Amino acid sequence: MIAGSRLSLNLITVDHWSLPEAAERCAAAGIGWVAPWRHQLAKTGVERCAEAIRAAGLAVSSLCRGGFFTVPGADADNRRAVEEAAAIGAPVLVLVCGPPQDGDLPAARAAIAAGIERLLPHAADHGVRLAIEPLHPMMIGERSAIVTLGEAPALARSYASPHVGVAVDAYHVFWDPQLEPLLASANGLVAAYHVCDWLVPTTDLLAGRGLMGDGIIDLPRLRALVEAAGYTGPIEVEVINPSLAELPGDELLADIKARFARI
Amino acid sequence: MIAGSRLSLNLITVDHWSLPEAAERCAAAGIGWVAPWRHQLAKTGVERCAEAIRAAGLAVSSLCRGGFFTVPGADADNRRAVEEAAAIGAPVLVLVCGPPQDGDLPAARAAIAAGIERLLPHAADHGVRLAIEPLHPMMIGERSAIVTLGEAPALARSYASPHVGVAVDAYHVFWDPQLEPLLASANGLVAAYHVCDWLVPTTDLLAGRGLMGDGIIDLPRLRALVEAAGYTGPIEVEVINPSLAELPGDELLADIKARFARI
Repeated sequence: MIAGSRLSLNLITVDHWSLPEAAERCAAAGIGWVAPWRHQLAKTGVERCAEAIRAAGLAVSSLCRGGFFTVPGADADNRRAVEEAAAIGAPVLVLVCGPPQDGDLPAARAAIAAGIERLLPHAADHGVRLAIEPLHPMMIGERSAIVTLGEAPALARSYASPHVGVAVDAYHVFWDPQLEPLLASANGLVAAYHVCDWLVPTTDLLAGRGLMGDGIIDLPRLRALVEAAGYTGPIEVEVINPSLAELPGDELLADIKARFARI
Repeated sequence: MIAGSRLSLNLITVDHWSLPEAAERCAAAGIGWVAPWRHQLAKTGVERCAEAIRAAGLAVSSLCRGGFFTVPGADADNRRAVEEAAAIGAPVLVLVCGPPQDGDLPAARAAIAAGIERLLPHAADHGVRLAIEPLHPMMIGERSAIVTLGEAPALARSYASPHVGVAVDAYHVFWDPQLEPLLASANGLVAAYHVCDWLVPTTDLLAGRGLMGDGIIDLPRLRALVEAAGYTGPIEVEVINPSLAELPGDELLADIKARFARI
């Protein structure tokens, strides 16, 4: 691992690269952490990815993603996700919890709580911490009924287990007027912190995210709140925006490092 | 006014019609309430609009919209908005409060609070109630720093005036896991209630709204909570979706009435 920086590249940011290519490029750029997605592992193979990460001297901050507990058949897939996290040395599995199947949001939230409870022993057995990620409320229909920093820590705390925490993504939570008390109440539970920026205007609900500094998120303030909640681990830069693929790779990684140093 | 129904047509739903045409069509369809937008008044003229509404025998539930307090020069425009509301007999002026100008959300929220305070005496003089509308958090960058049902009632209550309340729009707030306690805490403050539906998938941040019944909002539950908070006034159907303009007008209004009867 390259010492000294908490920057981790969430590899959805460079989804146009294979995982081995991304690992090599990160190492060359002096980025010591990465966070792969499962479809990237599937494309190259879990063992080859684990080897590529080891060979590049990188550490893994998390695996994205398990979850979708509201969808039938999620349990088996989530058990595999835990095993893949363990196989690549990811201490954290990020959970995108799944959308409601109809208008009954309380039922969806109950199904999520039950799904996490069933997955938890398997996660504990593998030394993987589950990180419940509240998504932006605009993603409720397709991705997650858990949409606030109010509910995710409460849900995590309900298991009273060191193997469940919360993933805080600046993009998903920055709008909340209660950020300060909510993060204070999440003390000890933050298992992952993701950054990017909210562009103005925002024209795409999924892939319209910006590089840090190009939008309206007060990232230094949010980082201070996350750190005050006890999180001192790697910080993932996760920017879902297809236009990043148009930049030369060296420039993109250098730009990400420079922007990271200012937040 | 046509007795017996609380259905009000927010005229952005039929923005492809002039206001006089919309008024005639609503009256013919047995819809007794309308809620115009200011650009519709500007297009036809405020006095002609007031006359068209009177001639059709309609009542006005609200005028959309004042606000944008974070933008320089908002005060004069908001005073005109109050005067226009009074001129067309709208008891309520809906406030879309304005976006942050940078990453300082607390500053934007303070500017909004101060702007409402400056506008309030003018609203009181004209017998117009200001309705602070929390918008969906996905609209924070372009339209409003007020994005939760937690903060809007608290802000409204801070003025201790009968001339300030809250506009509850199902589309903007349905995702909130705290709906029940938040609406209970807004008792007596609800000045407007808007309905449409959240489509899955949602592909447009502004104009991707659905007719009631086509999405995942539990509208009967939300209506019960709004009524339990003391609101018994007209309910505005506000569906921003350009595809509605493709339907024959009579069919559209009949469909809206039928769907409204089920929520």
